[in-house]
Amino acid sequence: MFSFKINKIDGNARSGIFLTPSGTVKTPCFMPVATAGSIRLLTSQEVIAMGFDAIILNAYHLFLKPGLDVIRSCGGIHNFMKWDKTAFTDSGGFQIFSLPDTTVDENGVSFKDPESGTRFYFTPEKVIEIQQVIGADIIMCLDYCPKIWDNLEELKLSVDITIQWAKRCYVYHSKEKQQLWGIIQGGIDTRLREKCIENLETLSFSGYGIGGLSIGEPWEKSLEVIDFVCKKINKSKVIYLMGLGMPEQIVEAVELGVDFFDCAMPTRIGRNGTTLSWRGKFNIKSASCKDENVPLDPDCDCFVCRTYSRAYLRHLFNARELLGMRLNSYHNLYFISKLMEKIRKSIESGNFQDFKKSFFNQYQRKEQYA
Amino acid sequence: MFSFKINKIDGNARSGIFLTPSGTVKTPCFMPVATAGSIRLLTSQEVIAMGFDAIILNAYHLFLKPGLDVIRSCGGIHNFMKWDKTAFTDSGGFQIFSLPDTTVDENGVSFKDPESGTRFYFTPEKVIEIQQVIGADIIMCLDYCPKIWDNLEELKLSVDITIQWAKRCYVYHSKEKQQLWGIIQGGIDTRLREKCIENLETLSFSGYGIGGLSIGEPWEKSLEVIDFVCKKINKSKVIYLMGLGMPEQIVEAVELGVDFFDCAMPTRIGRNGTTLSWRGKFNIKSASCKDENVPLDPDCDCFVCRTYSRAYLRHLFNARELLGMRLNSYHNLYFISKLMEKIRKSIESGNFQDFKKSFFNQYQRKEQYA
Repeated sequence: MFSFKINKIDGNARSGIFLTPSGTVKTPCFMPVATAGSIRLLTSQEVIAMGFDAIILNAYHLFLKPGLDVIRSCGGIHNFMKWDKTAFTDSGGFQIFSLPDTTVDENGVSFKDPESGTRFYFTPEKVIEIQQVIGADIIMCLDYCPKIWDNLEELKLSVDITIQWAKRCYVYHSKEKQQLWGIIQGGIDTRLREKCIENLETLSFSGYGIGGLSIGEPWEKSLEVIDFVCKKINKSKVIYLMGLGMPEQIVEAVELGVDFFDCAMPTRIGRNGTTLSWRGKFNIKSASCKDENVPLDPDCDCFVCRTYSRAYLRHLFNARELLGMRLNSYHNLYFISKLMEKIRKSIESGNFQDFKKSFFNQYQRKEQYA
Repeated sequence: MFSFKINKIDGNARSGIFLTPSGTVKTPCFMPVATAGSIRLLTSQEVIAMGFDAIILNAYHLFLKPGLDVIRSCGGIHNFMKWDKTAFTDSGGFQIFSLPDTTVDENGVSFKDPESGTRFYFTPEKVIEIQQVIGADIIMCLDYCPKIWDNLEELKLSVDITIQWAKRCYVYHSKEKQQLWGIIQGGIDTRLREKCIENLETLSFSGYGIGGLSIGEPWEKSLEVIDFVCKKINKSKVIYLMGLGMPEQIVEAVELGVDFFDCAMPTRIGRNGTTLSWRGKFNIKSASCKDENVPLDPDCDCFVCRTYSRAYLRHLFNARELLGMRLNSYHNLYFISKLMEKIRKSIESGNFQDFKKSFFNQYQRKEQYA
């Protein structure tokens, strides 16, 4: 029902096919984020048409809203949001540990819903139950995500609890047609990462998320950790870098062996007027766009770039027309979809290094290429 | 280049074809509102695909944002917003007279941009120039729109100034491939409406907007005025009821002879969670929708009703997901498009009264049919 087949290896980068009950996922794969059951401003149909094979949702958010009863009444998350391809849910550990009133003990984690003020207690078992009701194809263990990257005591604790909870999740999970993946914690401490991997590998999960990155550490440190984890985990397992997926990060992490990405940034920055292009980030609010009757990105063939001008997109933003947020979000996700396609193609033809070089020749890491 | 051909008359209701340089408009016609160059949250392509032949924009808003230079650089409003069918612009008289710091003299009107604080002075000639640059197919004279419906002195003044300004607009307008329509003011005083019509008819505009309604008067009074105006104006002229277009209003005004409508309500109420259906307004926020895995309107075949459930639409609204606003707006406009189609068909087959009866048998005027 589930399988992961690596078709080609190019250096440490690999391309393959991950099969789930909802279909085929071409890897390396970027998953648009549909936190609460919607990819912001876009329909599931549009995101499928762009070429995405999988999305990720958040169990913590869906538990609070709309609640499990509603999702159950609507026949599970695929039917609820009319997404008929592969769906992941994250446990929501990251979000719960980011809340101000969260306390943790060995048995589970207590948190307060910021909107209603109601307090909830999640155990690893409870989080599995929630995700079984939601019904995604792939679900994640409850993990302890540290708040900052350089507190060794907290990192140690987070690894110990993450390991215990992963074991409990593994034992408790029973749903057919659903696969449970583990999450590797340990911050930038490779000995802690190693400990986490060794313990989780005794359970032999089919896939692993790399958690606890992008919490303040420099990107070079993240890359070291990603490299370490990819080398340490059995090559047959799927590797998923959680929460990171700006274009330059994707290219560099694919090189190290990552298979899955998710990131809310492409749509989030789009809603704020920043668009992605092959030359780097591009701020559509810029005065230089005021009367530019040219496409947002001349090298892009998406609906927005084929149809509208920079002047129009800038105007929509200035006039606070929500259509502007919608069109920017569409373009940014389309861009990422094309990036993944190029990455996969370059690996399959053994040219990933050439692709990487030409990508970074064009793509500026600075905020605006103008 | 412009022509209005009435194909069928059924009582006072009529159906026909209004030809413009941008194409064919089937009447009675509802125009979605694209105030600042965007039909809120929807693309021009989606609105065309729903079957709409014309939209209306606002010259005052477009003058302030994005400004005439930008629209000129982008080749006019059709190209700017990629709307290749018929476009109208209203002068913006209604909006300008609604501002707190507006003063009027015989020569023109002075107002303050609420956002920048800059003061502008619009004459009838200036408003024609603005609309010539914007480049809609049909443009409207600058009119004096009274603020309240029952101040006879202001009504008299508004009619006198509206007549003078219409004459100046008529003389000044010079753009080929663009038609100028007059606006009838006079509140609910039929003698004032008559005076306005008689004066404007000496200029023989091809079409007339009925302005100055929906400013506090009861709907029955509006209907009396609409009836009076439709009967008084030469039957060969196009009649456009400005700013009114909820389903029940459309049906009742078509019966009196109205050809064009525009109204921001269908999209505005959609953004607030109220949807239209053949049974009346329907509040998607209602608790009763919580776990209803059924279409918003079982009698509607739009993309939203064919795809999503009430439970999902309610959830999107509750979770403040902007996709909810987008889907409600889409459905509501689609509903109006189908309503206009049914109205035209019933007139063409001489069954408008039967249609009206069956429409109101189903359609509840109250806020929620539950």
